[in-house]
Amino acid sequence: MALIEPKILKGFRDFLPQAESERKRVQGILEKTFESFGFVPIDTPVLEYTEVLLGKGGGETDKQMYRFRDNGGRDVALRFDLTVPFARFMAAHFHDLYVPFKRYHIAKVFRGENSQRGRYREFTQCDFDTVGVDCASADFEILLVMRESFMRLGVTNIEIRLSHRGIFNRMLESLGLGSSSAAVLRAVDKIKKTGEEEVRSSLREIAGESGASRILDFIRPEASSEETLKKIASLAGGEAEDTLRLSAIFGWAGALGIGDSFTLDPSITRGLDYYTGIVYETFLSDIPAIGSVCSGGRYNDLASLYTRERLPGVGSSIGLDRLLAAMEELGKKTPASSGAAALVFCEDEALLADYHKAASHLRSEGLCAEVYPEAHKQARQFAYAEKKGILFGVFALQAERVTLRDLSTRENLENLSLPEAAALIKKRLSRV
Amino acid sequence: MALIEPKILKGFRDFLPQAESERKRVQGILEKTFESFGFVPIDTPVLEYTEVLLGKGGGETDKQMYRFRDNGGRDVALRFDLTVPFARFMAAHFHDLYVPFKRYHIAKVFRGENSQRGRYREFTQCDFDTVGVDCASADFEILLVMRESFMRLGVTNIEIRLSHRGIFNRMLESLGLGSSSAAVLRAVDKIKKTGEEEVRSSLREIAGESGASRILDFIRPEASSEETLKKIASLAGGEAEDTLRLSAIFGWAGALGIGDSFTLDPSITRGLDYYTGIVYETFLSDIPAIGSVCSGGRYNDLASLYTRERLPGVGSSIGLDRLLAAMEELGKKTPASSGAAALVFCEDEALLADYHKAASHLRSEGLCAEVYPEAHKQARQFAYAEKKGILFGVFALQAERVTLRDLSTRENLENLSLPEAAALIKKRLSRV
Repeated sequence: MALIEPKILKGFRDFLPQAESERKRVQGILEKTFESFGFVPIDTPVLEYTEVLLGKGGGETDKQMYRFRDNGGRDVALRFDLTVPFARFMAAHFHDLYVPFKRYHIAKVFRGENSQRGRYREFTQCDFDTVGVDCASADFEILLVMRESFMRLGVTNIEIRLSHRGIFNRMLESLGLGSSSAAVLRAVDKIKKTGEEEVRSSLREIAGESGASRILDFIRPEASSEETLKKIASLAGGEAEDTLRLSAIFGWAGALGIGDSFTLDPSITRGLDYYTGIVYETFLSDIPAIGSVCSGGRYNDLASLYTRERLPGVGSSIGLDRLLAAMEELGKKTPASSGAAALVFCEDEALLADYHKAASHLRSEGLCAEVYPEAHKQARQFAYAEKKGILFGVFALQAERVTLRDLSTRENLENLSLPEAAALIKKRLSRV
Repeated sequence: MALIEPKILKGFRDFLPQAESERKRVQGILEKTFESFGFVPIDTPVLEYTEVLLGKGGGETDKQMYRFRDNGGRDVALRFDLTVPFARFMAAHFHDLYVPFKRYHIAKVFRGENSQRGRYREFTQCDFDTVGVDCASADFEILLVMRESFMRLGVTNIEIRLSHRGIFNRMLESLGLGSSSAAVLRAVDKIKKTGEEEVRSSLREIAGESGASRILDFIRPEASSEETLKKIASLAGGEAEDTLRLSAIFGWAGALGIGDSFTLDPSITRGLDYYTGIVYETFLSDIPAIGSVCSGGRYNDLASLYTRERLPGVGSSIGLDRLLAAMEELGKKTPASSGAAALVFCEDEALLADYHKAASHLRSEGLCAEVYPEAHKQARQFAYAEKKGILFGVFALQAERVTLRDLSTRENLENLSLPEAAALIKKRLSRV
């Protein structure tokens, strides 16, 4: 019989145990962090009506959608992000919920784009948003969640660069460029990639020579966030709710002793029309080239396409794949140990009941333990333990006494009761 | 502007925070259980080549597939189970892995079937399999994992009914019915639904009057598993590797003191051709009508469509949706508390830095804590806490002294330092 080639689609991936364990570990830390701030999980379908996902349509994502007719002839598509489904979700369930509603959602999304290096067609987003309130404290909390997430992952050297679209817009209006704001934003958004001169030449076409200079002056950070804030307030026509909000946020960060993590950077604009208030991106100081690993901002109304309920919100999104790549580069991965802490060796199949009893006991003490299922020669069982990163071998003797072998030091600890063996394993694990 | 109706596809679901929290809790317990036996996680794409998913094709699932052409013209489909992707995965990665390879995979699958009550088009399967070995100990371990999973979920009153397809086949061959085995299996598989007389009449057409009686005698359990085993061994032509394997499994279960969870039931056949050895289903004694919540068996060769490597295996699958429905019926859900343990009330926005400091401190002690973001009136903040199941209110006063309010007893504990407040919350939480 001819074999079918076990191939997978370009831009899609299998995750082998070590990679998947690490993904689960990181995802677990993120979930715990989000929950520690009172964010609650939701989930939505992978497949939705195209009409719902398209919204008003016209974006880049439209062409990238996996869109088709299902067996019932419905026009359906795979979700391409978690924001549109969240908007639809809020419209559908608003009356069963409460505000402020703080949700997180970690799930796969799908985009059929040209898959370059590091670009996947199936990838995981970790979104967290607070909707139903428009205030500085909700903005600040999202920034706290971002910072705390990286801290708990051991990625401590981060810089969250933030700005405010309202101040930017006021500056543009003072230049008579209010109607060109989308074009200006797109031009400015490229500054980290293309450099100032390229941006200046784009801006010159939109805003003229002096307008371009004024905008470039606006987006250039000063020596401190305070000075930057003072400058952009003045270029925007003075203080207002937007500058006061940034001022409050920086003040609170200082009061909590975490001011160092945040920098006011008016060149952060987040290209999208969608944002109306604070906007931010997160950079890893040790590998800036990887780009922003977590970004977002405040929007005026989440679900206006689906409901007349007004839902202002603020949120952020972590790209899990980029984060994991960054952590690998930073050496923040966990050791290769996946699977069980202890392997009960099988030397005589007549003793399998005893082997399973020994493993059961270790599990009842909260450890991971498995039995090698057949009496293969020891070398093969050792190779299995090594391949899985198993740390201890248990050789079950008679009368519930065992020999424990520390597979890293090759030391044998003989004639132990099962509780003694469990205690020793725990003690040594706590030292790792 | 006309609104878009925020509707979702039939057979697909949103999960609101309480439901999603419970799903995550149960999934977490399953993952921990699987890992405690040395099973490791993998993941595969939601979307695959149709050719790969169809395999040799011809099954019911073919018609149910969400199949379409992607933007590159490829014939692709959403996975309809986790077994076919696992087979493809093993063929693709065999040389990077080891045997026995024990994997678990918890993920969504998609079937466009008629969605009756309780039938979803998007649902979650929890699969665990051991491949690369064919021995009693591996079979037994899968049964242990099944039992332990339910125990750790608090679902203790279970009955795992098992049998062996090899013994069944020997019995059929002794009746000269070896070539009709698929038809016989399909008929027998219906006995729990339709009753004996219906099955007898189906069998009569395949096997004649005496054949039907012989088969019905074979599948009727005796008073004890020992007696049943003796009977089926004799009807199948005597003891062989298959009966010895069942005997070993029941012996080990007895030695581990968990024999009560397992019953030999020769009417368990698991309709599918796929299975060749032990087969089993799991019933909840308190709600038998819900049917099997976890089933599976041993198969001869997992990945023969994709590789010449022979991969015998044994595995099991838990339907998460049915399990959650069962747990709800059994009252095994966790209390409604989702989200934060403590809400710092906002009474004066000038004090927001202090509120955030208080919440940060509680989080640094491992608690969940959030700040109400605006100085709304107390009643509204209390309503928010109640809606979210938050247990404690924190009223931040001056100089880092707070009042703690137990929202269930309405008791106030005044003038506490933050560490004192954290200690009190932990103490009271441990009592819940």
